[in-house]
Amino acid sequence: MEIEIATIGGYEEVGRQMTAVRAGTDIVIFDMGLNLSKVLIHDNIRTESMHSLDLIDMGAIPDDRVMSDLEGDVKAIVPTHGHLDHIGAISKLAHRYDAPVVATPFTNALVEQELQDEQKFGSDSELITMDSGETMSIGDSGTVDLEFVNVTHSIIDAINPVLHTPEGAVVYGLDKRMDHTPVIGDPIDMKRFREIGREGEGVLCYIEDCTNANKKGRTPSENVAREHLRDVIYSMEDYDGGIVATTFSSHIARVKSLVEFADDIGRQPVLLGRSMEKYSGTAERLDFVDFPDDLGMFGHRNSVDSSFNRIMNEGKENFLPIVTGHQGEPRAMLTRMGRGETPYELDDGDKVVFSARVIPEPTNEGQRYQAEKLLGMQGARVYDDIHVSGHLCQEGHYEMLDALQPQHIIPAHQNMKGLSGYVDLTTNQGYKLGRDVHVSSNGNIIQLV
Amino acid sequence: MEIEIATIGGYEEVGRQMTAVRAGTDIVIFDMGLNLSKVLIHDNIRTESMHSLDLIDMGAIPDDRVMSDLEGDVKAIVPTHGHLDHIGAISKLAHRYDAPVVATPFTNALVEQELQDEQKFGSDSELITMDSGETMSIGDSGTVDLEFVNVTHSIIDAINPVLHTPEGAVVYGLDKRMDHTPVIGDPIDMKRFREIGREGEGVLCYIEDCTNANKKGRTPSENVAREHLRDVIYSMEDYDGGIVATTFSSHIARVKSLVEFADDIGRQPVLLGRSMEKYSGTAERLDFVDFPDDLGMFGHRNSVDSSFNRIMNEGKENFLPIVTGHQGEPRAMLTRMGRGETPYELDDGDKVVFSARVIPEPTNEGQRYQAEKLLGMQGARVYDDIHVSGHLCQEGHYEMLDALQPQHIIPAHQNMKGLSGYVDLTTNQGYKLGRDVHVSSNGNIIQLV
Amino acid sequence: MEIEIATIGGYEEVGRQMTAVRAGTDIVIFDMGLNLSKVLIHDNIRTESMHSLDLIDMGAIPDDRVMSDLEGDVKAIVPTHGHLDHIGAISKLAHRYDAPVVATPFTNALVEQELQDEQKFGSDSELITMDSGETMSIGDSGTVDLEFVNVTHSIIDAINPVLHTPEGAVVYGLDKRMDHTPVIGDPIDMKRFREIGREGEGVLCYIEDCTNANKKGRTPSENVAREHLRDVIYSMEDYDGGIVATTFSSHIARVKSLVEFADDIGRQPVLLGRSMEKYSGTAERLDFVDFPDDLGMFGHRNSVDSSFNRIMNEGKENFLPIVTGHQGEPRAMLTRMGRGETPYELDDGDKVVFSARVIPEPTNEGQRYQAEKLLGMQGARVYDDIHVSGHLCQEGHYEMLDALQPQHIIPAHQNMKGLSGYVDLTTNQGYKLGRDVHVSSNGNIIQLV
Amino acid sequence: MEIEIATIGGYEEVGRQMTAVRAGTDIVIFDMGLNLSKVLIHDNIRTESMHSLDLIDMGAIPDDRVMSDLEGDVKAIVPTHGHLDHIGAISKLAHRYDAPVVATPFTNALVEQELQDEQKFGSDSELITMDSGETMSIGDSGTVDLEFVNVTHSIIDAINPVLHTPEGAVVYGLDKRMDHTPVIGDPIDMKRFREIGREGEGVLCYIEDCTNANKKGRTPSENVAREHLRDVIYSMEDYDGGIVATTFSSHIARVKSLVEFADDIGRQPVLLGRSMEKYSGTAERLDFVDFPDDLGMFGHRNSVDSSFNRIMNEGKENFLPIVTGHQGEPRAMLTRMGRGETPYELDDGDKVVFSARVIPEPTNEGQRYQAEKLLGMQGARVYDDIHVSGHLCQEGHYEMLDALQPQHIIPAHQNMKGLSGYVDLTTNQGYKLGRDVHVSSNGNIIQLV
Repeated sequence: MEIEIATIGGYEEVGRQMTAVRAGTDIVIFDMGLNLSKVLIHDNIRTESMHSLDLIDMGAIPDDRVMSDLEGDVKAIVPTHGHLDHIGAISKLAHRYDAPVVATPFTNALVEQELQDEQKFGSDSELITMDSGETMSIGDSGTVDLEFVNVTHSIIDAINPVLHTPEGAVVYGLDKRMDHTPVIGDPIDMKRFREIGREGEGVLCYIEDCTNANKKGRTPSENVAREHLRDVIYSMEDYDGGIVATTFSSHIARVKSLVEFADDIGRQPVLLGRSMEKYSGTAERLDFVDFPDDLGMFGHRNSVDSSFNRIMNEGKENFLPIVTGHQGEPRAMLTRMGRGETPYELDDGDKVVFSARVIPEPTNEGQRYQAEKLLGMQGARVYDDIHVSGHLCQEGHYEMLDALQPQHIIPAHQNMKGLSGYVDLTTNQGYKLGRDVHVSSNGNIIQLV
Repeated sequence: MEIEIATIGGYEEVGRQMTAVRAGTDIVIFDMGLNLSKVLIHDNIRTESMHSLDLIDMGAIPDDRVMSDLEGDVKAIVPTHGHLDHIGAISKLAHRYDAPVVATPFTNALVEQELQDEQKFGSDSELITMDSGETMSIGDSGTVDLEFVNVTHSIIDAINPVLHTPEGAVVYGLDKRMDHTPVIGDPIDMKRFREIGREGEGVLCYIEDCTNANKKGRTPSENVAREHLRDVIYSMEDYDGGIVATTFSSHIARVKSLVEFADDIGRQPVLLGRSMEKYSGTAERLDFVDFPDDLGMFGHRNSVDSSFNRIMNEGKENFLPIVTGHQGEPRAMLTRMGRGETPYELDDGDKVVFSARVIPEPTNEGQRYQAEKLLGMQGARVYDDIHVSGHLCQEGHYEMLDALQPQHIIPAHQNMKGLSGYVDLTTNQGYKLGRDVHVSSNGNIIQLV
Repeated sequence: MEIEIATIGGYEEVGRQMTAVRAGTDIVIFDMGLNLSKVLIHDNIRTESMHSLDLIDMGAIPDDRVMSDLEGDVKAIVPTHGHLDHIGAISKLAHRYDAPVVATPFTNALVEQELQDEQKFGSDSELITMDSGETMSIGDSGTVDLEFVNVTHSIIDAINPVLHTPEGAVVYGLDKRMDHTPVIGDPIDMKRFREIGREGEGVLCYIEDCTNANKKGRTPSENVAREHLRDVIYSMEDYDGGIVATTFSSHIARVKSLVEFADDIGRQPVLLGRSMEKYSGTAERLDFVDFPDDLGMFGHRNSVDSSFNRIMNEGKENFLPIVTGHQGEPRAMLTRMGRGETPYELDDGDKVVFSARVIPEPTNEGQRYQAEKLLGMQGARVYDDIHVSGHLCQEGHYEMLDALQPQHIIPAHQNMKGLSGYVDLTTNQGYKLGRDVHVSSNGNIIQLV
Repeated sequence: MEIEIATIGGYEEVGRQMTAVRAGTDIVIFDMGLNLSKVLIHDNIRTESMHSLDLIDMGAIPDDRVMSDLEGDVKAIVPTHGHLDHIGAISKLAHRYDAPVVATPFTNALVEQELQDEQKFGSDSELITMDSGETMSIGDSGTVDLEFVNVTHSIIDAINPVLHTPEGAVVYGLDKRMDHTPVIGDPIDMKRFREIGREGEGVLCYIEDCTNANKKGRTPSENVAREHLRDVIYSMEDYDGGIVATTFSSHIARVKSLVEFADDIGRQPVLLGRSMEKYSGTAERLDFVDFPDDLGMFGHRNSVDSSFNRIMNEGKENFLPIVTGHQGEPRAMLTRMGRGETPYELDDGDKVVFSARVIPEPTNEGQRYQAEKLLGMQGARVYDDIHVSGHLCQEGHYEMLDALQPQHIIPAHQNMKGLSGYVDLTTNQGYKLGRDVHVSSNGNIIQLV
């Protein structure tokens, strides 16, 4: 059976991930993501009303025109998890293919919301939900199967899809960290990866998340971030003024820790901001997390302001607002608090906890710097960088290679500079660039069999 | 009563700490330390056989000639903890003063070993042991007391001495982190600091450890490092080759965690290297830590090599050697392992855990880089930077000011660049440089009353 | 005669410089500057219509309330050169004092424009022009003189004022580089500085520009930047598309070099942007520079657009626009060109020359990064960082100390971190912090005699 | 005619360059270099007495075993210039091939000295000298020619060899900067490169020096470094103590500038250190540079010490020693001066000029830091980083692509991270990774025709 891999998006950047695997006449697409920075550099652009071709020209969504060179039918579109760089282009591109979206429950819930936000696109894209650990047959040959292996990432319900073919397994490794104590959900299923590496024909090809390929060591578990965060929040137990926290809205495990620690130090947590409401609301509705019954989540401007007013009336010292704005985004809640644009008044000594890391790019760094300056001008004390990455570092990559022992390797989710450390690692392990390590670019097709 | 502070060493550098406080006619000296980097830049120098004046000229030990300008008698020499930059000059300078060394049990045990190593100096310096939480009277006035407040640092049994005078308390704040879960020993005694800030005349002067004064946020607890380390070591549970770890020999809490986690993953820990034996042996002898009965500690070259031979014979997979060399020191155990100079043979995939951070100075960075290169050439996989600092960051400084509310502040334990962040903080809190914040230099005397 | 120095602004930051020297009953104020970054962090603020007290509260202009503690009369306000951080608060503060502004011709021309821009303030502030090398008497005692010593900086006609008193000279050393080949104007007058250091009572006090105090070596001459720039521009001689350059508008020597090199490669230079027109127009009017007769300078939006239209019509290959926007300021000309908001169309391969360095602060870095991204999206090739600093580095400071041999030293024009390298240097040269080196803060008064 | 390129060394590192081009049955080898850092990390290794296979195992010299896969005969070994990473393995590997070394006069003079230093290898390797601008026929087909195009680098007499084949030209682009004012020798021959890009079949393949591929802008001309250096040295004209300078010994243009500027400020230059004598002596002997008749060059320890003694006797203020040690190498002359191991005594205020940049690697940075510390402890004032790179930055690469318009591109002289910026550039210019841009590794063969 012929096996081809089309590396469509995310092979020259972090963002707008998209990869297609053809096994005989059956094609499966992994991820359809958005590169948000390509949108934000322009003023006043709203992607909802834009045509996909314009977004492709901007480099915001994958250029999927190479799909016409793959001879076969798309049988499934498989987003691995609910981050926008993996699902954000589904509403723009999926309708071109006569195929269902197959994803885990939480991911599909987020895909559904994306589709609803998109005006031009109907509800005609079928969403099929499959849990991690399960397998479904792809196409009519009876020889190709799609399996979801549980992985751990900075969002819940993430999986690595594996396409089992007669020539061996194609393992799509985006995005993950090797976490044995992930706070929410099961640990990464390394046992299954090791089995896949040894059963049948073994692993034909491994497509790897190289975000952190130039970083040494091991990405710490979410539990390490949790203990770090606990240490910070508990240290504020005796403070009787305002405490505010921010983190990635989609990072349910972190939000859960914040909610719990707020409670531990006798403060009522409140989630504020549109995406805080969206992600945590979805996670609670799907029973991924069990928040306190009285946990407030407010997204609309009016209800947020009401909530802030209530906090100011009942006493800041009784609450711990968890808000959007961890990157210092100019319009996010925390930056607005820094500008004094909300009813919440910061006083000298009030604490602001960034349970997030600045995404290292000058634009973000400038915005975050400004947000912290503004908060500081109001008297706030800043606690920074209480976070762990969601992506494997070099020793995680080393362990994955040891588990899977793939014949071919395709580094992804980075530009060439970013993935260079991964190529060094594979070379060190006996692979060879151009022979079995394929550094690709957007729009390439790699023929494996 | 006149109160003067002589800032003798460590006010233009990190290293060779020494400060004297005169209260009336009674003088107490806090710390007498060594600046090791001033020694190491020269080839082939052994401090043991050097005269103190030569060491002063090199900038290696404090220039205590300013002491002759203080009118009074030295009543006590008080090292705050057992690090060399705080006790390393006692063997060179203490005999000039007719005063006992007053310190906690672990610190005094280390001071005693320093004195024994020094050939010219006899055993005639009296060592008085006092536990944290205790107080002794100083001099004959009956109005001056010395109290030890328990603090948390990267070595056990650290205290902050407080000199109570009729004019208020002088709090000597070197070195500490604000740790509520320190793995070994009691949490920092913030309750007592807050009392001192409010009782009697309050705090006349606070001398602060500014090592991390330019770092934002809060220094994490040792417990966070422990959970990080646990995550790393547990992730190696299935590895059946060699695992080696290194950390600061004097960091007993970290060594304890390494010993426990080795045991947890079914390996026998062994402590190797002269200073590993010295510090851990002392801590065990004084009952600060309860190591397993069969824990091996070997310092001499022959016994280390025997131990390595035994490990190679019985199988590397059964052991976890904990060795010296965390900074890549050319003669330390781990670097020698990288050069293949020990019986321990590293194989491809063997793990090396640095539970330490490179002290950020180009010499160290170069040596550590070389050590890692050499280890890598032997096939080792490196896990780096599993550590937390032992020193307060800005939010710890903020909390200390809030607790003590001192009239005067003297930043210490840094050069001017390093302490600048602390001056900014004090300015922000209403203090004023030159009025109540005293940026000093080595050899100055500050008259407070 | 009593001599006091009030360190009013610029002693905790770079920006809003202001220092007053009292000699007996005569006071001279050196500089009255603006800290622009304190204004820009707020949205939509126009300083022209703001009250000085609000600007003081924002930290934008010096808090001159300490002046009431100086017993004497202000006899002169002496800006050293025309940069906003030295003259930008004159229009807000000078009217409080019954004293003329004394400055060099170019500086006074810029002060005059500042005063005209300010609505509330009349034209009643007397401007007295004095050239470098000249001296005037201050007050009635007949013993105090003000001398202007020629220095070299990134703007023309800069001086260091020296107040000669019976107790020795007070040398106000802001801002300068030690340039022996400055492209426009005379070299720094080191001969005079050496004389001042040796004549009469010598130098009582030296107030130094510490902007680059932590940088090693010697700041290169403007001639080095010129040769670098020549190399870059000449390398484009064969290019037949668009070439655009930007630099600091007030940097007349650099603008002159750009104009000449444009001509050398057969292109017509055009100055575009409001401040380009302002500074270069003023310099030409005062005969500091002899631009070609047909050099266009356009500041108003309409005339800029007309000029761009003409360039596009006659062929980009015949022109070299020199525009504002070297820091990537969102509203500056070059950033607008990157956004495609001007009639000038960038094509693939067009060259953009930044003859400037990004001021190292995250906000600037983020904006500059965005500007370069936008220019790159239009196809532009970027030449960066063709520049030399206008401020002394460590070896310049070393030479100044050697020339002046001051009794007292006051580091200025930096925060404590920034000036720390200068204190190290003075310590190395035998001075002592707190004795003859005075690290001050805004609002302090230092009594020298 | 079949054209193949074997990428043998320098494709995963900077160092040990070696590339072979097969055109039909004729093979030409470009460069045979050494990776010195792979030697220096080991203690006490002398390469002269080592076997080539051991050096290959260490990664110190190219692994040329892939040459057996190329079907053809080596007709020439062509080093491009005299740096060790290009000629340092000739003495170890060239004797395996029955082919002459073809190089420019200066390069061949250095190759000859390498061969003489090597004990095992005889003088049987023929050296053929060809000047830049000349062409010779390769092999018997009459259709393959080797041309030397003049380029500019940080060593004199550098060329880019071009192999003209019936399928187009193969341009070997290592190492160069695009310099139109190179101080010694002719400017880079861009006219010829543009012709080659347009004549006959054009350029089949371009192998490019990617050392600086991640650096923006244009590498400045040597003339810019010269003017920078002039500014520094002239600024010391009035100093009446010691001035010492160091630079790359092989950098004849820089040495020439130092010699001239020493003379300009009334000091006698002296070249000290083994490699200073070697390179400058060779350059003078071959008439590349016209040093003053009385310029001393001393290499052996005794004569260096004599020279230092003479300088101390006749007065340091009359000399300007130009010595080895620009990277702070522990055994080099300048470091020994810092340790006080030479007769030259440094005094407070003496100047040390590093006309070189630290090669950015932690080992070098650590050694250089130590050297500067030691010099500073003797009182020396350090002038650093007066240098320009010898390698193209991004805009030079852009211009080369524009001139040559190659069909295929092979980035070289870097690891993958280092060359990533070059791949981005080629992608931007319409090339595609894997199609016509070939990122290779050591030991690969790329079939072009």
